Amino acid sequence: MKLKVGVSNRHVHLKQSDLDILFGQELTKQKDLTQPGQFASCEFVTIKTAKSEINNVRVLGPVRDYTQIEISKTDAYKLGLNPPVRSSGHLENSEVVTLIGPKGSITTNGCIIADRHIHITYVDKEKYNFPDKVKIKIAGEKPGIIEVNIKPSAEAFLELHLDTDDANAFLLKNGDEVEILDL
Amino acid sequence: MKLKVGVSNRHVHLKQSDLDILFGQELTKQKDLTQPGQFASCEFVTIKTAKSEINNVRVLGPVRDYTQIEISKTDAYKLGLNPPVRSSGHLENSEVVTLIGPKGSITTNGCIIADRHIHITYVDKEKYNFPDKVKIKIAGEKPGIIEVNIKPSAEAFLELHLDTDDANAFLLKNGDEVEILDL
Repeated sequence: MKLKVGVSNRHVHLKQSDLDILFGQELTKQKDLTQPGQFASCEFVTIKTAKSEINNVRVLGPVRDYTQIEISKTDAYKLGLNPPVRSSGHLENSEVVTLIGPKGSITTNGCIIADRHIHITYVDKEKYNFPDKVKIKIAGEKPGIIEVNIKPSAEAFLELHLDTDDANAFLLKNGDEVEILDL
Repeated sequence: MKLKVGVSNRHVHLKQSDLDILFGQELTKQKDLTQPGQFASCEFVTIKTAKSEINNVRVLGPVRDYTQIEISKTDAYKLGLNPPVRSSGHLENSEVVTLIGPKGSITTNGCIIADRHIHITYVDKEKYNFPDKVKIKIAGEKPGIIEVNIKPSAEAFLELHLDTDDANAFLLKNGDEVEILDL
């Protein structure tokens, strides 16, 4: 069974109160993402730490119940952080960073390395009898197999989400196809 | 069978005539590397392209018969390049970059993404009956299996060399241990 890859560059999700401080306005949609309801906004922040900073980090919408900063391990070295590998919303022991927007700044926990995960509907997870983790085979010049978490939700577009470290290690681009093993 | 990981950050090897132009002096040793005879020098260059540049890229010694620039895919995106994945010295269709040193600059081909490879002596390759490629199992929070080339030489310290994309994708650090499968 094949599925498409979506590569996630570093990005930020904001709760309403943090959005208010950083931007003083609602998010404006730049384009829809493949996951239903999710969008890339026209808003960008700077992630700042004691060691360094990264500019032009996109905010994704809509607003969430929590503020979350998703970076790669490569970014983490630049920023001098050691974030845990986590699924969205699991922010215990996440790293603290400062976010700077055009209207203000906040210092918040919520900085993680996103786990490798597959978006799938509850219905399809049941239908295909997916376990909670699967192995993904990647072809090409730097081939291999990676373990990936299954992340079911009511509405989903079937897709493997990888960060830029995983994508670049395997020379994968947005929309490339990979193969699910174990099914 | 277990072996140690050596993580290679972006670096440059120089031929004598390019060293003369860039530095106007011989390389000075900062420290020995694990591979016999190889060393990190105290000399650094800037890699420059039409799109961007990366500063403070270390030159490794001793001088070679060819100039070679080893970068990660992450670096390649920043620089606007699409280098081939290659073993050292196989520079056909490699990318062209400008190297800037304290005494001068050169524009040269030789920019590649280094393949994942294991350094091993001819004697040990024979003794352990290594094929030309092996599979490496990586444990940890982002586990998987990668295919790796065997690179035998007369003198070698047994070690898996990965670039920073591979290391960061699997959360590996210099000196970590991984397992060889297929043997």
